[in-house]
Amino acid sequence: MSRPVKIGADAALGRLPGWVGGSQGRDAIRRTYAFKDFNSAFGFMTRVALMADKLDHHPEWSNIYNKVEVTLTTHDADGVTELDVALATFMDEAAKGLGAKD
Amino acid sequence: MSRPVKIGADAALGRLPGWVGGSQGRDAIRRTYAFKDFNSAFGFMTRVALMADKLDHHPEWSNIYNKVEVTLTTHDADGVTELDVALATFMDEAAKGLGAKD
Amino acid sequence: MSRPVKIGADAALGRLPGWVGGSQGRDAIRRTYAFKDFNSAFGFMTRVALMADKLDHHPEWSNIYNKVEVTLTTHDADGVTELDVALATFMDEAAKGLGAKD
Amino acid sequence: MSRPVKIGADAALGRLPGWVGGSQGRDAIRRTYAFKDFNSAFGFMTRVALMADKLDHHPEWSNIYNKVEVTLTTHDADGVTELDVALATFMDEAAKGLGAKD
Repeated sequence: MSRPVKIGADAALGRLPGWVGGSQGRDAIRRTYAFKDFNSAFGFMTRVALMADKLDHHPEWSNIYNKVEVTLTTHDADGVTELDVALATFMDEAAKGLGAKD
Repeated sequence: MSRPVKIGADAALGRLPGWVGGSQGRDAIRRTYAFKDFNSAFGFMTRVALMADKLDHHPEWSNIYNKVEVTLTTHDADGVTELDVALATFMDEAAKGLGAKD
Repeated sequence: MSRPVKIGADAALGRLPGWVGGSQGRDAIRRTYAFKDFNSAFGFMTRVALMADKLDHHPEWSNIYNKVEVTLTTHDADGVTELDVALATFMDEAAKGLGAKD
Repeated sequence: MSRPVKIGADAALGRLPGWVGGSQGRDAIRRTYAFKDFNSAFGFMTRVALMADKLDHHPEWSNIYNKVEVTLTTHDADGVTELDVALATFMDEAAKGLGAKD
């Protein structure tokens, strides 16, 4: 894949309802998913792990029981790229199927 | 948990649409799930793995790309028990959320 | 399982080389594991997820590529208990097998 | 990746101690791993799942508790290719780290 081009968090957020900008002014996008339980949350994480490793583009994420908080940015581009939008879109679809609450 | 009591495959199958009896006359229940792709199939397997290890009741299962074939029986009871029905019910719900085709 | 009794972070840390106390004075224990790559890190997380859900005792954890940072405490006891020591010990063994660097 | 070229099971088996040929004369390679418990077995499966989906080359595999049986072949090449050797080598290393018995 050619080197990803920075589009910036604002451009990405316009296409990704439910996401917010990175903390402390960082050019990144962020979302917290809440599932029914740990089982669903980790099923989600496994689907995302498979996709992330395939794209060679990995999230910064944390988990406490039923909650998963994700931050996406592209280090090589020093900001948000289409790779982040692609992974965010995949996450939203996977989370919905696994019963994430709005 | 007290030792599970055998109810037999026929009693279980009456409550589990989509499932069939074990191969070669074995007192077991069986189902094949077809997902969209490997990613969904393995997300399903991970959810089931978590539940199975929690119940200390594990499936016999195989996977080829988007397909997962499962056989359930309870070795200690030499046949199908309520534990199998519980795990089968969990599998059906998890598979539905992960987009398994009917 | 009966309600876990608080032993406190200091008592736990004396038995867990490589672990440090919780941030901001919280009665918790914390460790960061560094693996070779994401594949190993997520293999570790899956093993821990299975054990945590079996124990019904879940970590607070975050992952960035090959790194996994874990915080353990027992909410019901408002501090560190033997459950945390048990999960920490399991994590250390699993991490070692998966090639975590010291 | 260009289309993989068939090297055949015999050529692969010469480089993969512990593996045997496919059942029923099929041009494939096969191995059974035995782990300490389900937790280790599924940790192995997760590592292999991540690698397989990255390579877009998936095993035929089954699991019963601590045992994982794997068959590898390359459908596009109608037999064993270097892709199978690569995935088999990864499996052997992952299994060793996860404590598979010889």
